[in-house]
Amino acid sequence: MSFGGAPAPGFSTRWTPLPQGVALAADPDVLPAGFRAGGLAAGIKPSGGIDVGLLVCDESAVTSAARFTRSGTQAAPVLVTREHTRLDAIRTVVVNSGNANAATGAQGYQQAAKMQGAAAMTSGVGEDQVAVCSTGVIGQQLDAGKVVAGLAALRERLAPDGLVDFQRAIMTTDLFEKRAALEVTLPSGPVVRLSAQAKGAGMIQPSFATMLCFVQTDAALSVQTADLLLGVCVQRSFDRISVDGQLSTNDTVILQASGASGVTIEPESPDELRFGEALDTLLRHLALLIVRDGEGSVRTGRVIVRGGHGPNVERAARAVANSPLVKTALHGGDPNWGRIVQAVGMALVDTAPLPVDVAIEGVQVCVAGQAVPFDQGDLAARVEADEVEYVIGLPGDGFETEVFFSDLGHEYIRINAEYTT
Amino acid sequence: MSFGGAPAPGFSTRWTPLPQGVALAADPDVLPAGFRAGGLAAGIKPSGGIDVGLLVCDESAVTSAARFTRSGTQAAPVLVTREHTRLDAIRTVVVNSGNANAATGAQGYQQAAKMQGAAAMTSGVGEDQVAVCSTGVIGQQLDAGKVVAGLAALRERLAPDGLVDFQRAIMTTDLFEKRAALEVTLPSGPVVRLSAQAKGAGMIQPSFATMLCFVQTDAALSVQTADLLLGVCVQRSFDRISVDGQLSTNDTVILQASGASGVTIEPESPDELRFGEALDTLLRHLALLIVRDGEGSVRTGRVIVRGGHGPNVERAARAVANSPLVKTALHGGDPNWGRIVQAVGMALVDTAPLPVDVAIEGVQVCVAGQAVPFDQGDLAARVEADEVEYVIGLPGDGFETEVFFSDLGHEYIRINAEYTT
Repeated sequence: MSFGGAPAPGFSTRWTPLPQGVALAADPDVLPAGFRAGGLAAGIKPSGGIDVGLLVCDESAVTSAARFTRSGTQAAPVLVTREHTRLDAIRTVVVNSGNANAATGAQGYQQAAKMQGAAAMTSGVGEDQVAVCSTGVIGQQLDAGKVVAGLAALRERLAPDGLVDFQRAIMTTDLFEKRAALEVTLPSGPVVRLSAQAKGAGMIQPSFATMLCFVQTDAALSVQTADLLLGVCVQRSFDRISVDGQLSTNDTVILQASGASGVTIEPESPDELRFGEALDTLLRHLALLIVRDGEGSVRTGRVIVRGGHGPNVERAARAVANSPLVKTALHGGDPNWGRIVQAVGMALVDTAPLPVDVAIEGVQVCVAGQAVPFDQGDLAARVEADEVEYVIGLPGDGFETEVFFSDLGHEYIRINAEYTT
Repeated sequence: MSFGGAPAPGFSTRWTPLPQGVALAADPDVLPAGFRAGGLAAGIKPSGGIDVGLLVCDESAVTSAARFTRSGTQAAPVLVTREHTRLDAIRTVVVNSGNANAATGAQGYQQAAKMQGAAAMTSGVGEDQVAVCSTGVIGQQLDAGKVVAGLAALRERLAPDGLVDFQRAIMTTDLFEKRAALEVTLPSGPVVRLSAQAKGAGMIQPSFATMLCFVQTDAALSVQTADLLLGVCVQRSFDRISVDGQLSTNDTVILQASGASGVTIEPESPDELRFGEALDTLLRHLALLIVRDGEGSVRTGRVIVRGGHGPNVERAARAVANSPLVKTALHGGDPNWGRIVQAVGMALVDTAPLPVDVAIEGVQVCVAGQAVPFDQGDLAARVEADEVEYVIGLPGDGFETEVFFSDLGHEYIRINAEYTT
């Protein structure tokens, strides 16, 4: 499956098949009805690249839902949005890259509030309907004046196809754009559109993961439906990935429903089910693109853990996905499955001897804690693929989870030993 | 401070000053009275290097104490030792490198038991006074027959200065030997000796860390004293370091007291205090050598966290020490302190806005969650030193902890993407 528009690497449908009734949008560079967007270079990124974006819903009946990082050191824009924005009625999103406006205290809070006010004026909505997002370096004061000047220039440029520039405005170390658009044929007949733009390549971790993701639909959703669907789909996508086990100060996901299609998704209807499946696929696809773009990543891993104790299943999956030993083995195309056993043992202390099962790409290598014979050459070939799947069995039944993760290679070191304040 | 003998890098006394009455041993290549050791190549390591070691206490009145990894997937030698060895009266330690004998199930258990039996015969002690240790690749069956053959040849070679070969027998990816010997002048007059050998460079993590460490003294210790002192000192050394946040399947620390000096350390005496200080310094020094030898490491970090909530203080310190973003910045000599704030925020979710203070090498960069002005050039120069200290303040008072950690660089990737099953 290749979502048109973005020069993203080709992506297999192995982990994100398109559901029935859901197709790639014919024109992924155009937003769903009721939305306009744009982006320009406002002088925040030292590179001179596009660094301010604006996304506006023209429908006053908009509904929305949002999720934020749980970090104890949330950035100023997250605090401002959580405290001053009607999260169920967001019409405008203003975003900058090149500066996270995090660890900036009261001054940073004022700058984020200034962005909110300017975006409200630019888009003609109340300040309490504007969400503010930032991404970039932590610990430097943001000059919101640059954003304000940029917004003034951006006002006339907002357009349904402005999402291309909007996407660029949210990118930092991303190597490729992460966006997609779907057309959803509802069981009741009509077709609605869904689009989303995401950014993120490092500082990506559980609970939850993408640094920024914006989702739009021309369907009408109740506030409760929007919140329910976004919550469930975030848990199955951005909350199930790990690049480096780190949690950003700025993570924000926003879903906006313009209703401009005139089609309402009724709660607990077959339409809602299909729409939810489409949203799920969309967010999982974007989450996987983030893993795929994990800084320096060349392979993507998926670990599935099954067992009889939910918290242990979760802990084991996270430990494997975040283990630098597992990640470097994945990077090297190395079938060193002992590191999987090590990571599981670390996650579940004081349980020895733990009868763990491990299979890699369908090759069983460990049963009940004991190595078993297998075809070494066969496994070595399998782990050199772009995607590698690990299945781990713990004692008992009833729980299953998964985490998608990137490998750890030289490029991660290069990027992060040189990306500086 | 340079502990003689080992070609370890010069080590500053900044973090491990020698206590009063404690001096480097004149001959660090000789074990304390009552001990003999040796090592030879038995064909387990593909390189043909020394891979089997034996350490014997000749005094039947030996006392000992031991600590093990808490991994849920403990290796067979750990299980055998925990289940069949009198941990307070260990006379013999048999060890192999090149194969961890982990994830090897019942067959591995038998091989470890075979090693225990052969070492008992070789050294003329009961099997229940033999500890078994292994280190190396996980998930391959160990051929204990090679160890048994090696032990037969080793029998005649055991000597007080055999610790040089014994040390080599425990090394895997270690770049240098980690051993030291101290002379402790007790307040009551006599002098006793303390020596220790450690190995570890990767898969090193909290709770606790060194893969293997063996400590000998010619003092007489009660069983209770040996256990108490080892427990406290391990908590302040191997439990306070992190190379890559991973927990080994094989970690083992053993303290043996031969009593051959005829000097008894009385409980709760000034002698015990001084002996404890010496043991503390010795283990902290070795723990720091492990961090220093962290795979690919060029710099060592120390994070100190203070605050009013003990678990939060601990969590924050671990999160900083294990953050790949902090570690890569340390590697790059990069003053990017925003990553420290990020790591703290990740550790303490749902506490925003958290008024965190951060100082690096004495330069205050963040106060109450807000960036403060500082001399960028000055800080940039300070973080290029071999050792970098981070001090983090959380709200409140009363708790303080520290973690020593290595950086994350290209060599870690090279070593771990290529070290294979």
